[in-house]
Amino acid sequence: MARETISDDTHGVVYEFAPEMEPVRTVEPNTSLTFETRDSLNGAIQTDDDLLEEIPEEVNAATGSVAVEGADPGDVLRVEIEDVRLAEDHGRVVTTPGFGLMQDDEDVEAPFTRITPVEDGENYDDGRPRVRFGERSIPADPCIGTIGVAPAEESYTTLVPHDHGGNLDTNDVTTGSVLYLPVFQSGAMLAMGDSKAVMADGEMCGTGAEIATDVDVTLDVIFDPEFDLERPLIDTGDHWKTVASAETMEAATKLAHKDAMKLLSEEHGYSPTEAHTFGSLVGGWRSPRSSTRW
Amino acid sequence: MARETISDDTHGVVYEFAPEMEPVRTVEPNTSLTFETRDSLNGAIQTDDDLLEEIPEEVNAATGSVAVEGADPGDVLRVEIEDVRLAEDHGRVVTTPGFGLMQDDEDVEAPFTRITPVEDGENYDDGRPRVRFGERSIPADPCIGTIGVAPAEESYTTLVPHDHGGNLDTNDVTTGSVLYLPVFQSGAMLAMGDSKAVMADGEMCGTGAEIATDVDVTLDVIFDPEFDLERPLIDTGDHWKTVASAETMEAATKLAHKDAMKLLSEEHGYSPTEAHTFGSLVGGWRSPRSSTRW
Repeated sequence: MARETISDDTHGVVYEFAPEMEPVRTVEPNTSLTFETRDSLNGAIQTDDDLLEEIPEEVNAATGSVAVEGADPGDVLRVEIEDVRLAEDHGRVVTTPGFGLMQDDEDVEAPFTRITPVEDGENYDDGRPRVRFGERSIPADPCIGTIGVAPAEESYTTLVPHDHGGNLDTNDVTTGSVLYLPVFQSGAMLAMGDSKAVMADGEMCGTGAEIATDVDVTLDVIFDPEFDLERPLIDTGDHWKTVASAETMEAATKLAHKDAMKLLSEEHGYSPTEAHTFGSLVGGWRSPRSSTRW
Repeated sequence: MARETISDDTHGVVYEFAPEMEPVRTVEPNTSLTFETRDSLNGAIQTDDDLLEEIPEEVNAATGSVAVEGADPGDVLRVEIEDVRLAEDHGRVVTTPGFGLMQDDEDVEAPFTRITPVEDGENYDDGRPRVRFGERSIPADPCIGTIGVAPAEESYTTLVPHDHGGNLDTNDVTTGSVLYLPVFQSGAMLAMGDSKAVMADGEMCGTGAEIATDVDVTLDVIFDPEFDLERPLIDTGDHWKTVASAETMEAATKLAHKDAMKLLSEEHGYSPTEAHTFGSLVGGWRSPRSSTRW
């Protein structure tokens, strides 16, 4: 059966994850779809001279939402990310006044735009497209910036992350990963967009190489899971990544570690104290050279 | 020529990095040494029944300091870490009241101790020792927790990190890495200790598997460097890691990214804005599966 496409143009986009969301399509569990996503800035930036003077009111358009039949609060939505393909021939990385990690740094110019052309992967041994930044070529490593479901009570614009997902900007949300999201509302209501051709862990300037993509996913539901998932969780194939959002990095770190402790307790029968101390030995990960499994 | 040993027992240890430090030994640049380090808790914890009721006044003993001839403020001390060997047959991971990421978590018991026996690597195909946590075996991945030089003006106990290094607790300070430290005082005055048999990135409970080690290093000096190094910098062989310490994670992240921007500007001739945006594409790193270089 052909994989159905959910398109930003024909099905529509949202700029808010809200408790009540209208589905553009309802699918059965274990359905494979392609989401077409536009770039986070809605095509406004096409040359180095296009400057983003401020964050627009509508940013990070998320294609959807898609309802999954039978998904109810307490279930878990399983999003297998099979492929994230670049759908235009250039991305863009920008600074904007009052935005990003270095917004108070006098040496950093804002607004500033650098178009990042995409080179076809056929020219490279590994077949991987390249993202150009000036004279340098970076292997493309596409990821989805904003992906989430209808939240429990509050509404969140697509510019912020929280327990429902949203603007996670985590570069492990990529080809080959499985993202698990808590279901807070009937149907779950998945929407996604804000993809990057490549993005640093941290997205320090506030954007990666923002770009339109076609995203192949299979959506499934884990009904009545034994594990009480409170926040997004990613299986990269190599690692389980707990993902927490909070007002400070310290608070987010605590939540993410607490979630990791819960996983370790579930897997190994550890007490919270054992999970905490075991996690203090094996949590996080090392550079590839010395990466180990056990 | 035999590699000289600097011993915690015979040469001594420090519990403070201070502007004025007495060298236990003075060596020429490009000298290879072995530092013998004791465990961070001075041998006080030998069974699961030994509990750490509070952080002792003297903790993280650092063997040294060693002066390097000719090193002057503005120079850079280059510490090539050739080997970190486990020097006792068990480590220990502990919680202590009022210490560590989860100190306010009611589910976590403190004090708590888990002895982590070391199994010989000869029993494993990869020849790597294992660290036991209950029934599980973790491949040993020793790192140095506390390593630093005499600071510019203030004194810092070996329990805290800052621009001089100190209690960095960064698991990239390990075999095969090169650590660069700013020289603030004549002779630099290097001391190190607080090693772990294995430690999570984040050391959430406040310790890794604390253990005595023998550390082979070669100390050298980069005189009058072109690059103005303000804080520790690590070359892991795969990545450059800027290391910053501050009151909040946000502030430390800004400093570390600013340092990375300086490196990118130096290497590629980028303006600060170009370095910032390029860094937002390639900074950080991905899980091993998808790790790329460019």
